[in-house]
Amino acid sequence: MQSETVRQISQIFNAQSVALVGASDREGTFGRLFLEGLRDLGCPHIYPVNPKREEILGFKTYANLTAIPEPVELAILLTPPEAVLGIVKEAVEKKLKGVVVFAAGFGELSAEGKALEQEIARVARAGGVRVIGPNCLGFFSPAAGLSTFPMSLMEKVPNRGGSVGGFAQSGSFTDQVVWFLTKKGAAFSTMVSCGNECDLAAEDYLEYFGEDENTRTILAYMEGVKDGRRFFEVARKVAAKKPVIMWKGGMSEQGAKAAASHTGALAGSATVWNALFQQTGIINVSCMEQVVDCALGFHFSPLPRGRGTAVLSAHGGTGVATADNCLAAGLELPGLADETKARLRQIMPEVGTSIGNPVDIGVASLLNPGLYGEAIRIIADDPNIDMILVNTSAIRACEEGIVEASKTIDKPVAVSIFALPELVPQEYEYLAENGIAAYPDAKRAAYVLSRLAEYAKFKAEREAEG
Amino acid sequence: MQSETVRQISQIFNAQSVALVGASDREGTFGRLFLEGLRDLGCPHIYPVNPKREEILGFKTYANLTAIPEPVELAILLTPPEAVLGIVKEAVEKKLKGVVVFAAGFGELSAEGKALEQEIARVARAGGVRVIGPNCLGFFSPAAGLSTFPMSLMEKVPNRGGSVGGFAQSGSFTDQVVWFLTKKGAAFSTMVSCGNECDLAAEDYLEYFGEDENTRTILAYMEGVKDGRRFFEVARKVAAKKPVIMWKGGMSEQGAKAAASHTGALAGSATVWNALFQQTGIINVSCMEQVVDCALGFHFSPLPRGRGTAVLSAHGGTGVATADNCLAAGLELPGLADETKARLRQIMPEVGTSIGNPVDIGVASLLNPGLYGEAIRIIADDPNIDMILVNTSAIRACEEGIVEASKTIDKPVAVSIFALPELVPQEYEYLAENGIAAYPDAKRAAYVLSRLAEYAKFKAEREAEG
Repeated sequence: MQSETVRQISQIFNAQSVALVGASDREGTFGRLFLEGLRDLGCPHIYPVNPKREEILGFKTYANLTAIPEPVELAILLTPPEAVLGIVKEAVEKKLKGVVVFAAGFGELSAEGKALEQEIARVARAGGVRVIGPNCLGFFSPAAGLSTFPMSLMEKVPNRGGSVGGFAQSGSFTDQVVWFLTKKGAAFSTMVSCGNECDLAAEDYLEYFGEDENTRTILAYMEGVKDGRRFFEVARKVAAKKPVIMWKGGMSEQGAKAAASHTGALAGSATVWNALFQQTGIINVSCMEQVVDCALGFHFSPLPRGRGTAVLSAHGGTGVATADNCLAAGLELPGLADETKARLRQIMPEVGTSIGNPVDIGVASLLNPGLYGEAIRIIADDPNIDMILVNTSAIRACEEGIVEASKTIDKPVAVSIFALPELVPQEYEYLAENGIAAYPDAKRAAYVLSRLAEYAKFKAEREAEG
Repeated sequence: MQSETVRQISQIFNAQSVALVGASDREGTFGRLFLEGLRDLGCPHIYPVNPKREEILGFKTYANLTAIPEPVELAILLTPPEAVLGIVKEAVEKKLKGVVVFAAGFGELSAEGKALEQEIARVARAGGVRVIGPNCLGFFSPAAGLSTFPMSLMEKVPNRGGSVGGFAQSGSFTDQVVWFLTKKGAAFSTMVSCGNECDLAAEDYLEYFGEDENTRTILAYMEGVKDGRRFFEVARKVAAKKPVIMWKGGMSEQGAKAAASHTGALAGSATVWNALFQQTGIINVSCMEQVVDCALGFHFSPLPRGRGTAVLSAHGGTGVATADNCLAAGLELPGLADETKARLRQIMPEVGTSIGNPVDIGVASLLNPGLYGEAIRIIADDPNIDMILVNTSAIRACEEGIVEASKTIDKPVAVSIFALPELVPQEYEYLAENGIAAYPDAKRAAYVLSRLAEYAKFKAEREAEG
């Protein structure tokens, strides 16, 4: 059964009527960027609030929330901190579902700020209104036509709803990860910036995404937690159903100190967090690159049945070193079945190749790029193999074979392109568009495969427990 | 004093007269690609050898090496394995300095192949000719107008000589790393593909690069070693003078097995190699990404005096997590001096920023991108700080401030751009052109800075020992 909190969050993320308090038509302001953004994304009912104006960008404008003659579900507040409490009182009067508070300068700055944000939360909750923030970037719900993420608006990220959801105690994380992953072929249900969490907190968002039917993969950046007990219980439940990929900032003492001045969060000890990841099955990563790498891997790939990985390469050295990287990441490289070897032998030249694990199809594959696809299909039939890591050159014909073959098999395929991404952006774009998780280094591909296998095992064990 | 081997290698890498045995004008052949490459790079004397032709691409062509009427220093052999011994005998007769043998199908394939390559080496050395290969891609010496690396020729890598040198027991490694790093603003003295090392071996090339005055940074990919004792002694001497960045393939049992079928190398145990890295000061890395990252860091940056790192960020979460990553990489994040903090306070807004370590200049820096440069200059004056790690957005105005400031200080600056490189290739290109080592993730920048600090300490200790 859906909890009251989940229901309330769902109403906010799917609001059809939005007041933008602090709307503006002045170039270079958030007030304009967000108003244009809501309009362009197709938010059905937009009410700019600005006491000094009658009309902004063709929208009738109101002096305050209570002056709006129709019902409003959500208010986005771009005002200074001292104005927030008054507006929240109006929101209560107007019976809104929620408010998003952008302003910084609360609990992360001083005890007075902390007291003020607590009062805001108290007033809001008592009146049935939930608060996102303060000191946050709001959220991005493309299917509902809602976004307050600057990068996504400036870069015109499309408003296609999808299955990646998440929350972050860092505005720039939410904003950037949406931009990165949308450009890489993923689409979002909702991404939310938690801010100081005076009311709604990480554990609430996690619970929401756990129950949200559209969300299949959950991303998170966290620095601290408000209600550790509840967070643990929610995490244990959610991570058993869906992958939760989390980057925890403030694991070191110095990082924790920085977190305190960032969002006022108490970061907690690394020991406690590591135990939490262990016990809940949360997929813990330690940098943005791993968030993106894992997000793509979990988004595009089925879960593997085991850790048995085949390495397919056309460069001997890369194959050798990739074998090292796979084993170091905890993967297994089983021997290929005799039938697989026999079938590979039929398609591969004898010199400059190697039929083992790694399989080296040799530089001849540059002249015959179809070898990649043929080899993938043969290897995928091998009962010893659960996943395939393919090293390829940045040559479209090779990529095409891999894309076509990947569509026909139900085992994870991770591609490592042997070229810096900034040198061949078009190859990375092509693979992303075709739902292939591509990495610029085989070590990163191996890392993602190992996390897929680890999570698949965890999930199967939890399901067996009932 | 220069050893005989170093002198011989130097003659090969700087050959002014080159015979290309197996030259061709047929499209899509190495025989044509290399002939055009030597011509375009400006190699002074080129002699195509092909018994079936009088002339190829405007060059007079010869039936064999001894038919060439002028002296020849180097022969590049594109012939099948069974023809190699005969041609090496001609090379001895013609008093060449060296031959490069491309053909595979020797020691990596069979005992007969091993015997044949040993005979080739014996004949060559007895006649004063040194052999590179077999089963190799030759070498790239841009200043001498010599290249046999397909990627570099196809992508028209410029023939500007530089200070990065290296050797690799993987042809694709040599080829790709030259392409990657040249595009990223580095330039090479020579890069050589070792192949099966029937004569000249990794330890010889390492000795050469140690003595070569043009080479300041050495890169290597190795799978095995022929003369372990000599390799150790050479490595100890060379790594104390210049950074040697090495990726060792075949560290795992399965990797070692793959190496045996790749270049016939005996990979040796991980324990032995790790001890070797420890004792010689070789900078050991474990993937191509780290080779490139470290190569750029060592190429562009001065050595730091210590591990004291300042993190400069405009996104709170990134700053927090970068502090974690720096400490995890073994860096120190000292407190800033009072004067530094006072000076930073003068340029930074009060809200949404943080003056500690990390320094968070806040999102206001997007409106005032000059803040990056100003902050870098102030932090670089701090006596507690040896290196600066800057997190920036993919916004040119921010990059410009960083580039200008970096030019005025003598401490390493590593930049992490908060954007996937394939999404903003132009920003990565701009920083590369301006001699800035840029990384798509702060964790990678922290890793490189930690290797710089580690090597600086090692070098200082070795110098103190005398």
